[in-house]
Amino acid sequence: MGIEIEQPCVELSKVAVSETHGENSPYFAGWKAYDENPYDEVTNPSGVIQMGLAENQVSFDLLEKYLEQHSEASTWGKGAPGFRENALFQDYHGLKTFRTAMASFMEQIRGGRAKFDPERIVLTAGATAANELLTFILANPGDALLVPTPYYPGFDRDLRWRTGVNIVPIHCDSSNNFQITPEALEAAYKHAEAMNSKVRGVLITNPSNPLGVTIQRSVLEEILDFVIRKNIHLVSDEIYSGSVFSSSEFISVAEILEARQYKHAERVHIVYSLSKDLGLPGFRVGTIYSYNDKVVTTARRMSSFTLISSQTQHLLASMLSDTEFTKNYIKTNRERLRKRYQMIIEGLRSAGIECLKGNAGLFCWMNLSPLLEKPTREGELDLWDDILHQVKLNISPGSSCHCSEPGWFRVCFANMSEQTLEIALQRIRNFMESIKRTE
Amino acid sequence: MGIEIEQPCVELSKVAVSETHGENSPYFAGWKAYDENPYDEVTNPSGVIQMGLAENQVSFDLLEKYLEQHSEASTWGKGAPGFRENALFQDYHGLKTFRTAMASFMEQIRGGRAKFDPERIVLTAGATAANELLTFILANPGDALLVPTPYYPGFDRDLRWRTGVNIVPIHCDSSNNFQITPEALEAAYKHAEAMNSKVRGVLITNPSNPLGVTIQRSVLEEILDFVIRKNIHLVSDEIYSGSVFSSSEFISVAEILEARQYKHAERVHIVYSLSKDLGLPGFRVGTIYSYNDKVVTTARRMSSFTLISSQTQHLLASMLSDTEFTKNYIKTNRERLRKRYQMIIEGLRSAGIECLKGNAGLFCWMNLSPLLEKPTREGELDLWDDILHQVKLNISPGSSCHCSEPGWFRVCFANMSEQTLEIALQRIRNFMESIKRTE
Repeated sequence: MGIEIEQPCVELSKVAVSETHGENSPYFAGWKAYDENPYDEVTNPSGVIQMGLAENQVSFDLLEKYLEQHSEASTWGKGAPGFRENALFQDYHGLKTFRTAMASFMEQIRGGRAKFDPERIVLTAGATAANELLTFILANPGDALLVPTPYYPGFDRDLRWRTGVNIVPIHCDSSNNFQITPEALEAAYKHAEAMNSKVRGVLITNPSNPLGVTIQRSVLEEILDFVIRKNIHLVSDEIYSGSVFSSSEFISVAEILEARQYKHAERVHIVYSLSKDLGLPGFRVGTIYSYNDKVVTTARRMSSFTLISSQTQHLLASMLSDTEFTKNYIKTNRERLRKRYQMIIEGLRSAGIECLKGNAGLFCWMNLSPLLEKPTREGELDLWDDILHQVKLNISPGSSCHCSEPGWFRVCFANMSEQTLEIALQRIRNFMESIKRTE
Repeated sequence: MGIEIEQPCVELSKVAVSETHGENSPYFAGWKAYDENPYDEVTNPSGVIQMGLAENQVSFDLLEKYLEQHSEASTWGKGAPGFRENALFQDYHGLKTFRTAMASFMEQIRGGRAKFDPERIVLTAGATAANELLTFILANPGDALLVPTPYYPGFDRDLRWRTGVNIVPIHCDSSNNFQITPEALEAAYKHAEAMNSKVRGVLITNPSNPLGVTIQRSVLEEILDFVIRKNIHLVSDEIYSGSVFSSSEFISVAEILEARQYKHAERVHIVYSLSKDLGLPGFRVGTIYSYNDKVVTTARRMSSFTLISSQTQHLLASMLSDTEFTKNYIKTNRERLRKRYQMIIEGLRSAGIECLKGNAGLFCWMNLSPLLEKPTREGELDLWDDILHQVKLNISPGSSCHCSEPGWFRVCFANMSEQTLEIALQRIRNFMESIKRTE
């Protein structure tokens, strides 16, 4: 830092000096390696290609076209009427027009098979805040949330850091394509009890990050029955719900609740965001949709710590209430993501690599276990290190997602151009061939 | 809520069911009364005038003019180049251009008498989040922060709710114009010790909300010496620093540190925001400026829960790096606030009401203790209720700010037109005359 200041000891809190924010994991180390030597087609063709970032860049042209045609979304008209109102608007309910548009967008993504009430939408600055906020509301320090593995590494920060809550893994493995089973749920629950940690809920990602698959209806029904039986909560993080390759493949917990006439719905909370489906992580737009009145009220108060800029609400209210735009966007984005997915899956297959069969998200779940020298976490990290430093691809090792089976990796495919993806695939093919030659 | 759902009991956390968020205080009750019957010159001339809201509406025309002349700040140019980058930008360091412009703006407000290093600026979605975030970093649950009274009622939520930290009041009173004394600091520290609560810091607002005055240099020096002696932290919330009527009247703790060659600076943290000085609370722009390297690093990681929309950073980076604009804005805004202040002070004086002599902020601190039937909190709230329901003015009772002396009220003057302020003053004059008549 520019102004150098002597730093004698003045004590900080336990939260400040704790390392539960997960930034020492390979997940973050890979980003560093990329930052230091980023691939560029022209200026740095031998640099690291970033395949560890779940960013959606495939549909930006549609957003840009909208903004070009609708300058009123970005401004406040000539003479700036409305600017004052907008600049002053800090009500934690959020702009009514925006909440309404969000509810409608969430319905469209689900093919109209679930209804969302704008009055139950709580806005937060990103899903990161939404998940933490729900954890504060549902669990006390020392309590547990059950989370199926493999899971998004950021949860180690979001759910635990400031809340003091424990994550207890629901172990899933490749024997049944990493599906959540009643036995695994029960085992995790027992494990938490043995740790003297009170279980307050189950948190799932549907579609799953990092698996890139949606959860089957029967599995969802089982999870819901489990939380009802245990009298605990269910958080369903559905931030990739608009990135399922076709609407019919995705069943939201909202649909199950609607079919059950909202019985026991008061224990269910959905997290959503525009960071993935619209590709707008910088705009910090997240939401909690809760069927529990007290959670809605409390979350809204708590959202004071993490409100969305009213300027951004204004822009997105305009964009998302234009159903011609949203209809086309959702459809086109899905088609493009599916195409990308096919491209990477076929590329990997031609290199001799298999992936879990996926149908959603911005990544695939790649099985390199046949390449491990040792079938351990260390073996996996050795391979990851080779791929990062020799093949120059930053992918995410399954162990950073707490996967209990070594050799799986998450590979992102939507944060780059098709040309770059081709180069990444070529590098993988070369790597696989070099391995064959030395065998 | 539209979708009605049966709400049987499923347990929530202690945080969720606690009432430490302060929303049951008169501070919030007054807002409700206003919301139900808001004054409007034409449509509701007998409605409640909102004087409980510290909003700055006096300089919007300058912002509007800037936006009219600089459309590139609100958009990304023709064909929207830069939109992709901006939409994807979620680095918790924030836009470098914006941090640099913020640092420079903070320097200008202080008349160039203090330097700010952009690398020490941590961005948060408003000062609400900044204060909470610092509390998480400086104190453990059960620890104490010492805060001079009267203080901003929101601190009961911001500093305590999710952190579990205690606020121990440093009692100030009218005998010395509510200045903080070494004795009061020491008494608060002893009180915390007697409660078995470990003191981790002192949090001051300078200029003070609700007093509307800046802290004198000698008092600041004493506070700094106190925290050094006790080996604790000092948080200086300076969100009204640009709303001091002239730059020379305000001494930032940053100036004191600079004069002391940054000795012991590692325990000092400044909070700032654009909500008050620029009148942009809806845009959610707050910042922590810390002289402690570890606090900067940790706060930046933690800011993931409360990032500022990159769209808003883009707009404000443009606006605040235009020094011609900022120079004129700061000067004009100060002059207008001073004029407003004179207007309300003279209006109140002509009605027979005295205020604490102020030099900053969007409010004055009004002494109605001579009117109290009983010199108690109840007496104060009875009078507040009369003023709210009979005079139809929503002002903030000192007791909601934990003032230890009954009869003081905070009255905001910058969130309305001069015409509306005149009407408010006329209502007060009528009220005072009606009291005289019945005496």
